[in-house]
Amino acid sequence: HSHQKLNYEPPRGLVQEKMTENAVFSQNKVLTIDTMNPNVKNVEYAVRGPIVQRAVQIEKELREGVKKPFTEVIKANIGDAHAMGQQPITFFRQVLALCSYPELLKDNMFPEDAKSRARRILQACGGSSLGAYSASQGIDCVRQDVARYIERRDGGVPCDPDNVYLTSGASDGIVTMLKLLVCGEGASKTGVMISIPQYPLYSAALAELGAVQVNYYLNEEKCWSMDLSELERSLAEARKHCNPKVLCIINPGNPTGQVQSRQCIEDVIRFAAKEHLFLMADEVYQDNVYAEGCQFHSFKKVLFELGPQYSNTVELVSFHSTSKCYMGECGFRGGYMEVINMDPEVKAQLIKLVSVRLCPAVPGQALMDLVVNSPQPGEPSYTTFMKERTTTLSLLAEKAKLTEEILNTVPGITCNPVQGAMYSFPNISLPQKAIKEAKALGQAPDMFYCMKMLEETGICLVPGSGFGQKDGTYHFRMTILPPTDKLKLLLAKVKEFHQKFTRQYS
Amino acid sequence: HSHQKLNYEPPRGLVQEKMTENAVFSQNKVLTIDTMNPNVKNVEYAVRGPIVQRAVQIEKELREGVKKPFTEVIKANIGDAHAMGQQPITFFRQVLALCSYPELLKDNMFPEDAKSRARRILQACGGSSLGAYSASQGIDCVRQDVARYIERRDGGVPCDPDNVYLTSGASDGIVTMLKLLVCGEGASKTGVMISIPQYPLYSAALAELGAVQVNYYLNEEKCWSMDLSELERSLAEARKHCNPKVLCIINPGNPTGQVQSRQCIEDVIRFAAKEHLFLMADEVYQDNVYAEGCQFHSFKKVLFELGPQYSNTVELVSFHSTSKCYMGECGFRGGYMEVINMDPEVKAQLIKLVSVRLCPAVPGQALMDLVVNSPQPGEPSYTTFMKERTTTLSLLAEKAKLTEEILNTVPGITCNPVQGAMYSFPNISLPQKAIKEAKALGQAPDMFYCMKMLEETGICLVPGSGFGQKDGTYHFRMTILPPTDKLKLLLAKVKEFHQKFTRQYS
Repeated sequence: HSHQKLNYEPPRGLVQEKMTENAVFSQNKVLTIDTMNPNVKNVEYAVRGPIVQRAVQIEKELREGVKKPFTEVIKANIGDAHAMGQQPITFFRQVLALCSYPELLKDNMFPEDAKSRARRILQACGGSSLGAYSASQGIDCVRQDVARYIERRDGGVPCDPDNVYLTSGASDGIVTMLKLLVCGEGASKTGVMISIPQYPLYSAALAELGAVQVNYYLNEEKCWSMDLSELERSLAEARKHCNPKVLCIINPGNPTGQVQSRQCIEDVIRFAAKEHLFLMADEVYQDNVYAEGCQFHSFKKVLFELGPQYSNTVELVSFHSTSKCYMGECGFRGGYMEVINMDPEVKAQLIKLVSVRLCPAVPGQALMDLVVNSPQPGEPSYTTFMKERTTTLSLLAEKAKLTEEILNTVPGITCNPVQGAMYSFPNISLPQKAIKEAKALGQAPDMFYCMKMLEETGICLVPGSGFGQKDGTYHFRMTILPPTDKLKLLLAKVKEFHQKFTRQYS
Repeated sequence: HSHQKLNYEPPRGLVQEKMTENAVFSQNKVLTIDTMNPNVKNVEYAVRGPIVQRAVQIEKELREGVKKPFTEVIKANIGDAHAMGQQPITFFRQVLALCSYPELLKDNMFPEDAKSRARRILQACGGSSLGAYSASQGIDCVRQDVARYIERRDGGVPCDPDNVYLTSGASDGIVTMLKLLVCGEGASKTGVMISIPQYPLYSAALAELGAVQVNYYLNEEKCWSMDLSELERSLAEARKHCNPKVLCIINPGNPTGQVQSRQCIEDVIRFAAKEHLFLMADEVYQDNVYAEGCQFHSFKKVLFELGPQYSNTVELVSFHSTSKCYMGECGFRGGYMEVINMDPEVKAQLIKLVSVRLCPAVPGQALMDLVVNSPQPGEPSYTTFMKERTTTLSLLAEKAKLTEEILNTVPGITCNPVQGAMYSFPNISLPQKAIKEAKALGQAPDMFYCMKMLEETGICLVPGSGFGQKDGTYHFRMTILPPTDKLKLLLAKVKEFHQKFTRQYS
């Protein structure tokens, strides 16, 4: 910390005494670990969990001059593109600057298309200001632009802007939908099916809401694909003790990097229809598809292609965000969700629910608008925009390939192709001795492994146990986001560490 | 809607048939009004409730050329300053533009202090970009600036940046704290004491969390002050059926406009200490104090002035935001909360909880930083900043006075002084005949009154029943934000309407 020391801070010698004092106070506190909401206590969120907290500490130690076997911490724990050096799209930032300080509209330094986008957004804001609240569902013209984007993306399948809700990132939308869906107690408590491995927002939200997490396992042998038989097994099992109502899918997959085939999506939709499940499709990586032969198919498009028997009945919500793809604008917390076949009475409830939080941050809404209404051929910013977009996506494709290839050269590491998204989730063989030692410390073996890697190399990964994995298997999640040179260095260090670790515990 | 008609939209003649079809489908839906989360169903939020939805419809009708006895809807329902024409602070918007598009740092059009603030914020962001995630608790240097601001505000009472959490507006912080605090079932369910009238975020959050709302009534006869005896009555009553653990205060008051005296705050703190209650102080209107003899005292400052017996034990969280005061930047959803005497184990849980949502939107964090680290004497932007700030606050003070004065000239309307915040909450006498007619329609009488006013005059107010009021009394909440001329017009129309309404139902 660089802030000045506070007067009331006790001298070093008193710390022990202070702690005892604290313990005494603690018993008298209103809010303690024993009296707090137990659901919150059950929440876990590995992506920012203990390993990341330790990484932050180590960074501080490095700044303070503590000697380490490395000079910097490389955070490959979270899909935070800009933090890894990815540059923002110029056009987006120009428009955001114009919207923030409309005086700039008088300036000649900005292209006309940036100015006209800014004017359009400002006109839709109360008092022509990003500082006014928007409608709780989001700015009207942004929702209209989102609807047109979805229609283009899905080859003309219609999208009604009334079904579009702007959100604070996809996480906000997912939590809001789960909040609507979860109820009941005991055997009638809502069950929510999530993939294992999963993105831990899901398990965290379910814990907080007190819902039943129903696991279905992705097939690692088949490139992390979804198996219908596994869905059936999982559902039948869950029905013995809860009321499974929701099926969540992440496509392209986080942490798996899998891109689902059209056939698989069809199967899932038929399954949901047959089994009366509400579908939640997390499609925030829709532009992040790298592998040859792979293509992004939205659940909505496939649903409509299956015909009215499905498209008029299956309840689906899909999520998108400004944080991933080629934009990587996580800090703006922009996003949207589209609901299909939602009961009109429930929609009214949803609007009421989001209105309590007033509105998603307006700069994030403006950014979402730019993503769905990006420069078009003939507009002055088009060439630069396309160049920036293509460069970022090609680099990601290159790094996806590189990551898979290098990891697969390491004996004891097996990595599925990173077909899409931003992560590899390789399988790691851990020696029995290491597993034993971890368990003696009360740690998950892959947490033990990742923590050791952090201490020895400065590389921050997330253990597979934070996402869920089949018993007896171990993984880590690593983003492919560092710049190519740094990524190569990182992969070389992972390789070296894994070999050393294996020797040490064999 | 300006969006193109969708292919799949049924021809007009089929609408009836489609609705029947919908009703049939609805029975088969997974998510219906009967199967959804009942806590969400219980949520009410009047500030954006049915009256505001009708106002939006009327605006649309006016655009479509429908004839009305007025030409525009005046929304005095929500504290949305920019929407009412208040101008943003130039310095804040310059820095935000610089942060959004750092190329502008090379330009000569911006003052040096704006540039240096922007550089400082960007340096604290991952990859020097507003697009990177921040720490979940908020950007370090922003929390440090908040801490220094609090220390200055409170005459040197120390503030540890580790106790500061940045939030998405104050609402987010309030909901997060309630989430930590609420637990239990039946008679051990957490009770949360809130003022009546209250800001309906509180009742909405409590409904969603399934907590027990414990009402204490403010004393309208004494300018909406808090009475200790009423707190005691309310608590004793609540202890018969739940476990009251939390006491919420809004100061300056929303919707009451009351500014609490130092003595009152002292009494409340002693009461909380004696009764073992966790204090939540909503202080988002801390710069909005207008009445002579009134002054803002933070709960924290008073707590520390009461001595270590209180300052070492009473658990307090206070909330602030970028949305109110002289900034009025609601759309950015910036805010912070400071926790005092929070159990360290609970703090760890709080950090975990906020980490699931990754981080508050970074532009809002940047704006919060500018509010707590505004231009200082000697800096190039100081004069303009102070002029803008003073103008806005003086105008608000003038409008607060104007509102009170004009409303009190209306027979049947009694309005307490608007000492602070942004609202008047006058008492309105309604004729028995009107009350009867409202009840026959299943409406709260003040909802009936406000809805009629909206239809006849285009003025959108919020009925007192949305905030809570003593049985048999009726109120409305009206913001003082419209520009002076428009406010005068609005008040004249309210006067005319009230007189006409009274005649009509007498």
